[in-house]
Amino acid sequence: MSSKNIAANGDCLGWAARDPSGVLSPYTFSRRALGTEDVSVRITHCGVCYADVVWTRNKHGDALYPLVPGHEIVGVVKAVGSSVHHFKVGDHVGVGTYVDSCRDCQFCNDGLEVYCEKGALYTFNSVDADGTVTKGGYSSYILVHNRQLSIGFSSTSSFAGITVYSPMMRHEMNQPGKSLGVVGLGGLGHMAVKFGKAFGLNVTVFSTSPSKKEEALSLLGADKFVVSSDHDQMKALANTLDFIVDAASGDHSFDLYMSLLKSTGVLALVGFPSEIKLSPASLLLGMKTISGSTVGGTKEIQEMLDFCAAKAIYPNIEVIPIQYANEALERLIKKDIKYRFVIDIENSLT
Amino acid sequence: MSSKNIAANGDCLGWAARDPSGVLSPYTFSRRALGTEDVSVRITHCGVCYADVVWTRNKHGDALYPLVPGHEIVGVVKAVGSSVHHFKVGDHVGVGTYVDSCRDCQFCNDGLEVYCEKGALYTFNSVDADGTVTKGGYSSYILVHNRQLSIGFSSTSSFAGITVYSPMMRHEMNQPGKSLGVVGLGGLGHMAVKFGKAFGLNVTVFSTSPSKKEEALSLLGADKFVVSSDHDQMKALANTLDFIVDAASGDHSFDLYMSLLKSTGVLALVGFPSEIKLSPASLLLGMKTISGSTVGGTKEIQEMLDFCAAKAIYPNIEVIPIQYANEALERLIKKDIKYRFVIDIENSLT
Repeated sequence: MSSKNIAANGDCLGWAARDPSGVLSPYTFSRRALGTEDVSVRITHCGVCYADVVWTRNKHGDALYPLVPGHEIVGVVKAVGSSVHHFKVGDHVGVGTYVDSCRDCQFCNDGLEVYCEKGALYTFNSVDADGTVTKGGYSSYILVHNRQLSIGFSSTSSFAGITVYSPMMRHEMNQPGKSLGVVGLGGLGHMAVKFGKAFGLNVTVFSTSPSKKEEALSLLGADKFVVSSDHDQMKALANTLDFIVDAASGDHSFDLYMSLLKSTGVLALVGFPSEIKLSPASLLLGMKTISGSTVGGTKEIQEMLDFCAAKAIYPNIEVIPIQYANEALERLIKKDIKYRFVIDIENSLT
Repeated sequence: MSSKNIAANGDCLGWAARDPSGVLSPYTFSRRALGTEDVSVRITHCGVCYADVVWTRNKHGDALYPLVPGHEIVGVVKAVGSSVHHFKVGDHVGVGTYVDSCRDCQFCNDGLEVYCEKGALYTFNSVDADGTVTKGGYSSYILVHNRQLSIGFSSTSSFAGITVYSPMMRHEMNQPGKSLGVVGLGGLGHMAVKFGKAFGLNVTVFSTSPSKKEEALSLLGADKFVVSSDHDQMKALANTLDFIVDAASGDHSFDLYMSLLKSTGVLALVGFPSEIKLSPASLLLGMKTISGSTVGGTKEIQEMLDFCAAKAIYPNIEVIPIQYANEALERLIKKDIKYRFVIDIENSLT
């Protein structure tokens, strides 16, 4: 993509952070011209992910301002490049954490573009081939390589699910009758509970907060709720779980949760604590596994969306206007959300 | 097994540690009478495992003295119980880290008896149903439940292999053309190199000691040797390995080795460092896995032995008399061994 393709038309509306305060405000910018393999998507909704907090506030030290966050995008195709045949104007589509990849390595060929050997082009804060910085879904439209799009989104779907669906499938957690522990009941954890129940698992939710019991059992349908600081309850569960999805972002004892797993058990980490620390015995004795995961590939996202449609699995969301985005990020930091904010772009970003 | 079955005949010769000094000396004791499902094995050879150091010296604080170590046992069947039909007197057999299990849980039924839900009965330092403490292979014979025996041992085979074979198979490392890193070149690491080459992998050995280069490449047939303290060489290998077998017992950076793995890569831990500590990013970004393993089940041991026989894979060993056992344990502590001591029980224990 050469720089001549940048259409300096300033026709994209968005909200951007300008500095590490992370405060978002209206920002108008240009996107590059539509390439032959691109799809242009009019954004209708964008989910609010904790990554939006991390990068707007420059937590990793690599933020490129002005920064337009958002990588849980759904919308409607408004234009397609001349070589694009699988999508047409009017299709309902989704865009996740990346908008392009090399499309030619072992991971891209397996539909795991996000693990592209040459590095996927992330949806925001990534440097595109033409030197411009990608800008995310808190905006009116976006350009995506057609291979990185998923189809068939309803407006209430969200990408939060793929972060838990992907490791759950990879570690074969879809075995009815097996037991799953879910640590942390936020945007990711609540989807893990829903998938777990849809897979026929016996689901136990672990939380630091007793106040989550009612919603875990009644609203989400978990089989059991345990306050993780209750030593007796935790001890009684030793060697009883086949799988754990660990979606807690706060620090916690890994040895403790590994002790709850049966032999050959797997803990899938999707949260982001400050450090992983454990005794080798926690893995060695009982042949146990810790595995990390962030997002899935395009193929798997499509598979998840089809599964969610078939099983009527939807995230619990709170729809907000773009003008509420700053408050939403603050509430996300305070964990004051059940369970996902979704910005109604089409009706509020004007 | 009731206590009346203990044959107080004092006919088993052995060498035992008496206290945490770990010094071994001759010790005569009784084994229980042959049960209907038991096999009595005349021991011909016993491998020296680092576990023998750990328990004779009470490193875990649970040693039951007098302690007869040894859980890499080969020998010849000398008697079978009345219900045993798969083994007969004269068969060459092997006994690993356990001599019995519940034989009725999901793991036992899958041939993973060592992960028995009720706890396997370990070959030494474990309390048997009759209250006696099991005693290992530094002795003239041993009783084993027939289900925990493997068949077809040559006298030079050893159990060291299963500790690396089991996780290598579990994580599908037997894919020709993929790349394997082996960390630490001791009794376990050298077998990982041999299996890796037999599986058709491109094998890189990592060692703290440049002196191991010649043997890694020439003797064991590794493709590449890297001194792990060489930052440039390590950096050049970032994102290049599909698998790592980590057999280093000393402490080392897990973040560093995880960075060498490609996306979806697996590090199989078989060594026993003092702690595992790493950044969540090392697992989350690239969907990477750390998995522990100690030994395999009976079914898998048999499978490995058949594979070793077919591919002519043998551990490199140094045969010693029982009278050299104390020196051998000292040399094991100093890592002064290439690569496994095997005690010639039948010709030296009299």
